[in-house]
Amino acid sequence: MGINEKLILVTNDDSVNAKGIQSLVKIASKSGRVVVVAPDKPQSGMGHAITINDPIRMNRVEMFGEVEAYSTTGTPVDCVKLAIYEILGQKPDLVLSGINHGENSSTNVLYSGTMSAAIEGAMEGLPSIGFSLANYAHDADFMQYEAYISTIIEHALEAGIPKHTCFNVNIPNVKNAAIQGIKFCTQAHAFWADRFDRRLDQFGRPYFWLTGEFGEVNPKEDSDLHALVNGYISIVPTHFDLTNYTAFEQYKSMKL
Amino acid sequence: MGINEKLILVTNDDSVNAKGIQSLVKIASKSGRVVVVAPDKPQSGMGHAITINDPIRMNRVEMFGEVEAYSTTGTPVDCVKLAIYEILGQKPDLVLSGINHGENSSTNVLYSGTMSAAIEGAMEGLPSIGFSLANYAHDADFMQYEAYISTIIEHALEAGIPKHTCFNVNIPNVKNAAIQGIKFCTQAHAFWADRFDRRLDQFGRPYFWLTGEFGEVNPKEDSDLHALVNGYISIVPTHFDLTNYTAFEQYKSMKL
Repeated sequence: MGINEKLILVTNDDSVNAKGIQSLVKIASKSGRVVVVAPDKPQSGMGHAITINDPIRMNRVEMFGEVEAYSTTGTPVDCVKLAIYEILGQKPDLVLSGINHGENSSTNVLYSGTMSAAIEGAMEGLPSIGFSLANYAHDADFMQYEAYISTIIEHALEAGIPKHTCFNVNIPNVKNAAIQGIKFCTQAHAFWADRFDRRLDQFGRPYFWLTGEFGEVNPKEDSDLHALVNGYISIVPTHFDLTNYTAFEQYKSMKL
Repeated sequence: MGINEKLILVTNDDSVNAKGIQSLVKIASKSGRVVVVAPDKPQSGMGHAITINDPIRMNRVEMFGEVEAYSTTGTPVDCVKLAIYEILGQKPDLVLSGINHGENSSTNVLYSGTMSAAIEGAMEGLPSIGFSLANYAHDADFMQYEAYISTIIEHALEAGIPKHTCFNVNIPNVKNAAIQGIKFCTQAHAFWADRFDRRLDQFGRPYFWLTGEFGEVNPKEDSDLHALVNGYISIVPTHFDLTNYTAFEQYKSMKL
């Protein structure tokens, strides 16, 4: 390890067994020394969950070849905390999460385990990036976007990211040659129109399965959804202050 | 049910068996018709998790007396979705979550199942409020704060809450008589200084248990933590746009 070599933590929410994290480790290894700490099973939709009431187990795993790697029974956020405080014993130069099998644009950032790990990195004061590809297939071809992903990683290592902010990077599901470029964006104002499939089990008892469609409300030209639809890789600078300051200004003198 | 009676959905993350939700149902019932849809087991720290890969079960429960109530195997966010799309068949006038056993001020909002349910209500375009008391005891005395909680509920029903915004209400752990009033606040810039307890199980294998201390960085006079320390009930108007607009302005013309 060179004295100036960068230390890069890689995690995800699809587990150590996902193709997306294999690809990210391959790409990130060209920019520094990678250590993997990731969930031992899929954790999609876990949001910013942490494990409070149960102990967490951690095991060395070998599927990343020479790259030091651990699986844990925890959530993506747990993995970031464990990596920093139990494994590395120091803060890494960069936290990477993904590449997620499926997009995390717009309000999906709230449900996303991938992005929660990146946000946790930002809370630790570290440059952090979540990568997602708008393709849910287990065998999606992530490596075709290597040049773009490397560019973003190198930019973060060289120029940094504003403190307590991370990048939410989404790649549209088009061939690499059709990518129009990289665009910095705002979070789209889009929501799931939820509904549930109500089905009956073998005993005639109902169970419910979440489904729905996604649509943008008040489309904005600078939104991540707009960029993705137009073939761009979107980057939203994302932070964790949920205060609605406009509303705060209206309320702050109010007596209840 | 009077024709003008308000429909109020109540959920939480401590489960239908918690004292906090019993107290909130009692208080909210004075302002409208309450329907409870809440997790069947504690879901603290679940963040904005949703159940994607498993079906959800739902059962009628009787512990709220005459109040219509359901427990589900889902997360707090699942409960809000199920309530709207499967149980009520309409959007309620108000979504309430809590009263949480423990505070959810500052960045805790990201980890909080209580607040994620309120944020989900805001995503559905509904006035929504999460209530938390800075007391983790299972038998905490929530009812002593009834007048304050009622005031906040009545205000939301009468004046509404700005669309796609919810209230994050935290009550300090002091006797009701010592409460200084209600203060609108911003989200404090505070973090957990995490560490893990590393212990050995009966077979000598390590396990890890999350612990740590909470501290405010760059204390702000208008923060929720500052209000709580000074004996005020804090209300942060909370939204779900995580874009760091200051950073976006810096980046938006950058070519990568």
